[in-house]
Amino acid sequence: MTQDRFGTDVYARRLAAAARAAANAGLGGLIVTPGYDLRYLVGSRAQTFERLTALVLPAGGEPTIVLPRLELASLEESALPGLGVTVRDWVDGEDPYRLVIDALGGADVAVAVTDSMPALHLLPFADLLSEVPVLATDVLRTLRMIKDPAEVEALRKAGAAIDRVHARVPGFLAPGRTESRVAADIAEAIVAEGHSEAAFIIVGSGPHGADPHHECSDRELQAGDVVVIDIGGPCEPGYNSDCTRTYSLGEPDAEVARRYAVLQRAQCAAVDAVRPGVTAEEVDTAARDVLAAEGLAEAFVHRTGHGIGLSVHEEPYIVAGNSLPLQEGMAFSVEPGIYFPGQWGARIEDIVIVTADGALSVNSRPRDLVVIPVP
Amino acid sequence: MTQDRFGTDVYARRLAAAARAAANAGLGGLIVTPGYDLRYLVGSRAQTFERLTALVLPAGGEPTIVLPRLELASLEESALPGLGVTVRDWVDGEDPYRLVIDALGGADVAVAVTDSMPALHLLPFADLLSEVPVLATDVLRTLRMIKDPAEVEALRKAGAAIDRVHARVPGFLAPGRTESRVAADIAEAIVAEGHSEAAFIIVGSGPHGADPHHECSDRELQAGDVVVIDIGGPCEPGYNSDCTRTYSLGEPDAEVARRYAVLQRAQCAAVDAVRPGVTAEEVDTAARDVLAAEGLAEAFVHRTGHGIGLSVHEEPYIVAGNSLPLQEGMAFSVEPGIYFPGQWGARIEDIVIVTADGALSVNSRPRDLVVIPVP
Repeated sequence: MTQDRFGTDVYARRLAAAARAAANAGLGGLIVTPGYDLRYLVGSRAQTFERLTALVLPAGGEPTIVLPRLELASLEESALPGLGVTVRDWVDGEDPYRLVIDALGGADVAVAVTDSMPALHLLPFADLLSEVPVLATDVLRTLRMIKDPAEVEALRKAGAAIDRVHARVPGFLAPGRTESRVAADIAEAIVAEGHSEAAFIIVGSGPHGADPHHECSDRELQAGDVVVIDIGGPCEPGYNSDCTRTYSLGEPDAEVARRYAVLQRAQCAAVDAVRPGVTAEEVDTAARDVLAAEGLAEAFVHRTGHGIGLSVHEEPYIVAGNSLPLQEGMAFSVEPGIYFPGQWGARIEDIVIVTADGALSVNSRPRDLVVIPVP
Repeated sequence: MTQDRFGTDVYARRLAAAARAAANAGLGGLIVTPGYDLRYLVGSRAQTFERLTALVLPAGGEPTIVLPRLELASLEESALPGLGVTVRDWVDGEDPYRLVIDALGGADVAVAVTDSMPALHLLPFADLLSEVPVLATDVLRTLRMIKDPAEVEALRKAGAAIDRVHARVPGFLAPGRTESRVAADIAEAIVAEGHSEAAFIIVGSGPHGADPHHECSDRELQAGDVVVIDIGGPCEPGYNSDCTRTYSLGEPDAEVARRYAVLQRAQCAAVDAVRPGVTAEEVDTAARDVLAAEGLAEAFVHRTGHGIGLSVHEEPYIVAGNSLPLQEGMAFSVEPGIYFPGQWGARIEDIVIVTADGALSVNSRPRDLVVIPVP
């Protein structure tokens, strides 16, 4: 199953870097339950919920994995066996929280926990530990946000795959076809073009395009519809694509064309704003300013983007209030949209990677409104 | 979409009962983020992660739903519009935690949170509130565990559907077919027989049957294999099936047959032990004692069962240490298993509902080792 993850050396480096980051933050250790942080650190796709699985990473000691005996076999699919991590398995009826505290070296340790740890496990830890844990996001943020060359390659592979899907989308769109039927064709194409699954498919036609999170429905496409197609999914070893293009069934009317052109300039301005040292919110502002200058500020109802990697939504968030300076290797979406309730909407989205020279887009399909001829 | 949930009156009753239970527990309110509790209380299948969606249920006041403006449209799919719940939407850049505190009536309130609330949201709440929240499980346990007649009906429908799948399984098993191929056939049958999806499929053949959580692999079935098939999924309005039967490709050898017969007696003893007032752990012990008497104690490496409903695994857990007395309307699995690493395993699982007269099984296929003739 090696294609499902990177080599052991990658995870060994990440574990060491995470322990260092914890120590630098004045923490005694990290507790990481199943989720993207666990996958990032040790290549594990464990998904236990009520039975505790936890990687314990003391800032100054050896890591331990605490897991139900039932899950011992699943260790083999992760990088754990090659990492020299101590394994502490437990059976129903035992207290796994105590095993974690022991692996940390005691309860008087300042601890950070993974952001997905459910209250079911976090509250027992908070009870046992002398202080309430903090979010490990602050410790792991830099590590997770800055993609190494192998991760950049994985994101580019995913971007190329979703570009191939968008290249096929015009063939799926025609008056009389339902959004659901189009979505089914796209789902098949997403897998056929190299994704391990279709993680999300938005087909927002006509008035449905005005709801940024509409998925799909039995609405039949009509001549004159503007259609938002926002699609993506993971490619092994698990890095995601996410790309939006907007299509028009027949020539758009003049006002749609005018507004779309403004959106296209806004998306371009935001991408152009990307470079090391610029803050996340400055990228958001770059898109917003273009729209505001043309009276479209109110039509842009969401943030400009989100980080992407193993998770479709992760840091950095490209949003007002986020003064995080961009650094080389960060990867995120740039996806301004305009929405006119009851009428139509449009969005343009690329995933970009911050390089010394500015934004490298992993998506390269044209960003124009794609006009599909109708009879 | 009404078939996706019960009528509004059901959710109105549940909300009122949850508020009462919170008041009785001395709490000021509940905070429920997306997950099974939210689905149970208001029929919402929201799945937001980093953007906070939260139902705020003050013990003595009116409920509020706090959600991203992006998700306003999804409200229509839940029972919320008919429930008179105040809607407080927020946009990127706003502080949704503050909206929740306001809806609670302040930070000096003792709060319980849903068990799936991620640390990402729980820790900000813990920071704002004057005391660390507790788990809402304790408040919602009785409500969620005791299935009402409509829920029992939903579980029986799901049980009948998975019985129909097990009836077809012998046709999928033959020497030379891989576990994955068998699993694909089962997946199709699960949907064809009325489930909305195949949530889990374990095909554990030969030595793979000795790993209780093995899923499936490219191993080809062989004459002489014992095969554990543990399958299920949700049927609308979302209640799950979960049923295990064990199959033998050809007549089993005498020792396999002897041990299986002990397992069958153990499963039967546990089901027979079920009645109101008996504790969860007594049911576990009933199965364990039969196995121990025949020298098979070590072969049974997991708990006897788990509650089931909207979630495949929920309370009550049928496990050593759980002194919860069973009550009418509780629904859970009874699934002892025996596992011989490197050789074979077997498990028998039914979902039962506690009635005044004892266990009502929603599954009714024979519990014998199912022998598939091989050439």
